[in-house]
Amino acid sequence: MEDCSNRDMDDLEIDDNKEHGVSMLTEPFLVRNRKNNTSQIAIVGANTCPIESLDYEIVENELFKQDWRSRKKAEIFQYVVLKWTLALLIGLGTGLVGFFNNLAVENIAGFKLLATNNFMLKDKYYQAFVTYAGCNVVLAIAAAALCAYVAPAAAGSGIPEIKAYLNGVDAPSILAPATLFVKIFGSIFGVAAGFVVGKEGPMVHTGACIASFLGQGGSRKYHLTWKWLRYFKNDRDRRDLITCGAAAGVAAAFRAPVGGVLFALEEAASWWRSALLWRTFFTTAVVAVVLRSLIEFCRTGKCGLFGQGGLIMFDVNSTKVTYSLPDLLAVMFLGVIGGVFGSFYNYCVDKVLRTYSIINERGPSFKILLVIVISLLTSCCSYGLPWLSQCIPCPPDLAEQCPTESRSGNYKNFQCPPNHYNDLASLFFNTSDDAIRNLFTSGSEKEFHFSTLLVFFVAIFCLGIVTYGIAIPSGLFIPVILAGASYGRFVGKLLALVSNLDVSLFALLGAASFLGGTMRMTVSLCVILLELTNDLLMLPLMMLVLLISKSVADIFNKGVYDQIVKLKGLPYMESHAEPYMKHLIASDVVTGPLVSFSGVEKIGNILHVLRVTKHNGFPVIDEPPYSDAPELCGLVLRTHLLVLLKGKRFTKQRVKIGSEITRTFKAQDFAKAGIGERGEVRRFGDHRGGDGDVY
Amino acid sequence: MEDCSNRDMDDLEIDDNKEHGVSMLTEPFLVRNRKNNTSQIAIVGANTCPIESLDYEIVENELFKQDWRSRKKAEIFQYVVLKWTLALLIGLGTGLVGFFNNLAVENIAGFKLLATNNFMLKDKYYQAFVTYAGCNVVLAIAAAALCAYVAPAAAGSGIPEIKAYLNGVDAPSILAPATLFVKIFGSIFGVAAGFVVGKEGPMVHTGACIASFLGQGGSRKYHLTWKWLRYFKNDRDRRDLITCGAAAGVAAAFRAPVGGVLFALEEAASWWRSALLWRTFFTTAVVAVVLRSLIEFCRTGKCGLFGQGGLIMFDVNSTKVTYSLPDLLAVMFLGVIGGVFGSFYNYCVDKVLRTYSIINERGPSFKILLVIVISLLTSCCSYGLPWLSQCIPCPPDLAEQCPTESRSGNYKNFQCPPNHYNDLASLFFNTSDDAIRNLFTSGSEKEFHFSTLLVFFVAIFCLGIVTYGIAIPSGLFIPVILAGASYGRFVGKLLALVSNLDVSLFALLGAASFLGGTMRMTVSLCVILLELTNDLLMLPLMMLVLLISKSVADIFNKGVYDQIVKLKGLPYMESHAEPYMKHLIASDVVTGPLVSFSGVEKIGNILHVLRVTKHNGFPVIDEPPYSDAPELCGLVLRTHLLVLLKGKRFTKQRVKIGSEITRTFKAQDFAKAGIGERGEVRRFGDHRGGDGDVY
Repeated sequence: MEDCSNRDMDDLEIDDNKEHGVSMLTEPFLVRNRKNNTSQIAIVGANTCPIESLDYEIVENELFKQDWRSRKKAEIFQYVVLKWTLALLIGLGTGLVGFFNNLAVENIAGFKLLATNNFMLKDKYYQAFVTYAGCNVVLAIAAAALCAYVAPAAAGSGIPEIKAYLNGVDAPSILAPATLFVKIFGSIFGVAAGFVVGKEGPMVHTGACIASFLGQGGSRKYHLTWKWLRYFKNDRDRRDLITCGAAAGVAAAFRAPVGGVLFALEEAASWWRSALLWRTFFTTAVVAVVLRSLIEFCRTGKCGLFGQGGLIMFDVNSTKVTYSLPDLLAVMFLGVIGGVFGSFYNYCVDKVLRTYSIINERGPSFKILLVIVISLLTSCCSYGLPWLSQCIPCPPDLAEQCPTESRSGNYKNFQCPPNHYNDLASLFFNTSDDAIRNLFTSGSEKEFHFSTLLVFFVAIFCLGIVTYGIAIPSGLFIPVILAGASYGRFVGKLLALVSNLDVSLFALLGAASFLGGTMRMTVSLCVILLELTNDLLMLPLMMLVLLISKSVADIFNKGVYDQIVKLKGLPYMESHAEPYMKHLIASDVVTGPLVSFSGVEKIGNILHVLRVTKHNGFPVIDEPPYSDAPELCGLVLRTHLLVLLKGKRFTKQRVKIGSEITRTFKAQDFAKAGIGERGEVRRFGDHRGGDGDVY
Repeated sequence: MEDCSNRDMDDLEIDDNKEHGVSMLTEPFLVRNRKNNTSQIAIVGANTCPIESLDYEIVENELFKQDWRSRKKAEIFQYVVLKWTLALLIGLGTGLVGFFNNLAVENIAGFKLLATNNFMLKDKYYQAFVTYAGCNVVLAIAAAALCAYVAPAAAGSGIPEIKAYLNGVDAPSILAPATLFVKIFGSIFGVAAGFVVGKEGPMVHTGACIASFLGQGGSRKYHLTWKWLRYFKNDRDRRDLITCGAAAGVAAAFRAPVGGVLFALEEAASWWRSALLWRTFFTTAVVAVVLRSLIEFCRTGKCGLFGQGGLIMFDVNSTKVTYSLPDLLAVMFLGVIGGVFGSFYNYCVDKVLRTYSIINERGPSFKILLVIVISLLTSCCSYGLPWLSQCIPCPPDLAEQCPTESRSGNYKNFQCPPNHYNDLASLFFNTSDDAIRNLFTSGSEKEFHFSTLLVFFVAIFCLGIVTYGIAIPSGLFIPVILAGASYGRFVGKLLALVSNLDVSLFALLGAASFLGGTMRMTVSLCVILLELTNDLLMLPLMMLVLLISKSVADIFNKGVYDQIVKLKGLPYMESHAEPYMKHLIASDVVTGPLVSFSGVEKIGNILHVLRVTKHNGFPVIDEPPYSDAPELCGLVLRTHLLVLLKGKRFTKQRVKIGSEITRTFKAQDFAKAGIGERGEVRRFGDHRGGDGDVY
């Protein structure tokens, strides 16, 4: 139901010729100022009330024309300026946070690895492990403590919550400032702790939190609200801001501005208009410019260990792509594998999440304990498994250093003698970004053994599953890309006799197939991967592999985000109704006894009803003598009744007193207090039509 | 109004428990098979009638589950298989046509240019001009004759018509097979005739026509319809197919599959669902694979003069992109220029179109005359203007041939002595694609003089304006890219002292700015340009320039396609209503005397009403004795009444006779005959809500 489609309340009549409505009438045949005498039911969903977004009322380029009423014009001018300023600020903020995140992770994880490596060079393997695992556990505890005590809503990816929010589910505190804080630092600590988690999902959530924070103008609690921001105190404008924020988050995480827009469009937003496309595009462009400038700045070495790599994260552009029929078949095979693995991954994540929720419910200390266990497990795997691998002599005539002495690089020395490298350590004993970069390296077919890739795939697959769901901010993209790239490279090596494609391209396509199989996105994933790897010639193959893996995986189950939304009990509303719903009527879904008000109602009645019931909305039915026959006027919301009662504008006559009372309230008095502040899950208005629910 | 939301017709009662509806009820609380006793008004827009798209009823992955009713399952299985087969066929068809178009244009235009060049090498300048202009006029007449006599709807870009169709305006014969034929060959002749037109707009229209053709299964006239295709005889499925076709057209024209999807999303489709995103993506992937294979095949030289260039049309990837603040300012300046020029271009196109429509209305011969005049003008410009330019000595140490002997190439000899080239001829005396490629050439700052770029820009700007609107299929992209690239390169040369960016990048950004200023697209243009030029590092600058040019141009007027839609008188429905419309009621917009039927009505009455009025829909109101009080049952469409009358299923009793009559008609009997076949403009159903009009 519309948040504000109704203003028939206690002692207050609906006034059809609202001042601001009539002032907009410019068409000649409407100047006779005719009373609208249709039933009020038609007004439900018609958005005529003043707390609705101003966005409906403006055609932006008309601002420059003369026929605008001056009052309205000033208001709309403020609105437009503020809208774009906010988009700019969201872009700037998300870009800066994204850069800070990268910088912090690279430096913390880098120093950790360097310290461990120092011990290893001196053959002090035991101390090396203690340093490594110790750092990991300390970082993990920091992240988990933040999550468990400060903002539990910051755990997990955040994408399901944003998806649900943009669908209309205003869950408590998912966009609170505390969540923002924990998401930023929890994600940094979590990724730096060596967990098999990504920073991408958390960045999306962070972007959305930044947007929410800016849109609210800080917090009312600390008197930080700003007068102009009253225009954004409605669900529609908030949702638009959050959409921009989510897109900015993707743009910052993957350095993929167009991918960000598409992600927001395909995966997140349920309400979408082309005007929003435009604003989202602007926001992500700002993110791209900010990131680009800062990365350019870091090239000079002023950012510690962060500085390698430009705007393109995993540049594979160097390989030449030509393919024939056997290659296409190989790629299709990869797609099928991706679909099967992807749906299996989703199945496992679902099961593990159900188990973990039992543990996590026992309290913060259990949450932290679980995180410590997983952290130790991860440390053991990434330090222990490389010992299984044999040392490989460095290939001669290599452009790169071998073994690498710096932190990143393809050829990790690990326990090997000089001029040898450990291929499994190059993947495990590294940051996730570097591991992906190594898997995507072209022209080095023999760098990784079959067994290495297999062990790495199995380990990452399992670690990814058991890591998601613990109390740290944890993205799903990176584990999925890692696992996908490793089996892709494995298949590529296997089919080297049949196919001419480079193993690095197989790794990329493997990552795409696994992403398609788990996330079930198509266009946005495709663009994100293109922007990640800067390889447009791969486009047809990428599309093919995504199409196949999604189709195959769709046979078995839903996408991972949809699963998590369902698991969290968020009442997500699908874009089209199930067929049986066509045969439902209101009485099938209504709960409790029906409580309705009359157009003129006693205050005592209202107070009683508000105390006794928990309904969020009440139908208003005018009965004789106020109308000729019982007539449904509309619906009044609990929140609006509370505002009216607080305002104490009552009348003693038992008559409808018209518009004078509406004037004593301003639009923003009816605005929603904030996002998720009521401490309960509720659905807000569907502004496109009248098919929302109140419950 | 819904095409089929109503089936209360002559002697025929609405039957609430429709067989196929009830068979879908699987939820436990619905098994009691309850009568739906709400007013029929609620059913308007509820899509319960059998000729609605099956797409609403399916969740595709549930096909594999067991609890589907077998009859329904078979039907839906057929539907799904057919849907994807059609998407595949649309992709294949559009890909092939796109390739054929390229092949034909390159060969025809190439031989024309080679023949002219031969005369020029022998200093026979007069004969050269006659050959050149003669070829052009003959090709132009062929294109114009096709357009004027066979399918007038094929003239122009086609994008506005597709946009209007996807908005719900079913204009006559825009998607007819004859239009398809003329669009393909008219576009080939028109582009080969050297007009300043592109093949991009026509390709979009061609793709849509192919989709419509395949969806109709050929033509009913020639008994080519196929039984299974009955599922696609409704507006919703047709619209989905056309959307796929339009996307495939863009993908084929620009070899930009992702850009195609986004174009369909941003510019064309008014109705959009994520399921459609997915299907469109599949179609464009097929196009990409087809094009890619065929181009690979042509590399070996089996396609005549076509064969250079891979999947990327204008590869500028070679230049290194680093930029600083002055560059950003220069780019912003370009954006402002693009916005101003773009809106001026739109203004001029609008004026010229109004003038031409007066000429074109006089008959086919006047249309052809106009085409001949413009053709001669174009020939004079492209042959005459290069004489203004001075001969430039070939730069030494050039990787390329200078002067070029083959058809394309940067350094045209024209009238110059050996080892000299004419830079204006390199742009004019060439195909548009090659001219763009030349403008985008990097590392050759001195190749084009200031005066050359200025003359070329002015000529192309003016020729582009006067060419659009003549009776040939004419796209707007290529003229706009040409003009934009030339002023971009001009600005780049001008700012060479201030900015470090390569002139080729300025040319690219100039093209982007002019495109943004005219078309007012953002994301799709950005992706199309990226896919055209394969340069992801330009992304932030490209976004910036598009944002600025669109914003600046939006101050002055609307996008060019919106203008043309308005000019053609197509009743395009904007995504949000003007504010004054909120105060309209039905009686404000209705025309003529209201004619309504009773639930049971005499055939004589109906026939009389159908003959006397031109209304397309009639309200059906049950009055006593058929109901207790006057009750609005719904709306019956003229087309459905005609079907019922043809079926001659009448009753003699004056009672409602229920469902037995519905069984004698099949769903497809009520299906729309075809697209635009009624020879009049009409709006079809808005399937998302109930807010359509009938007129």
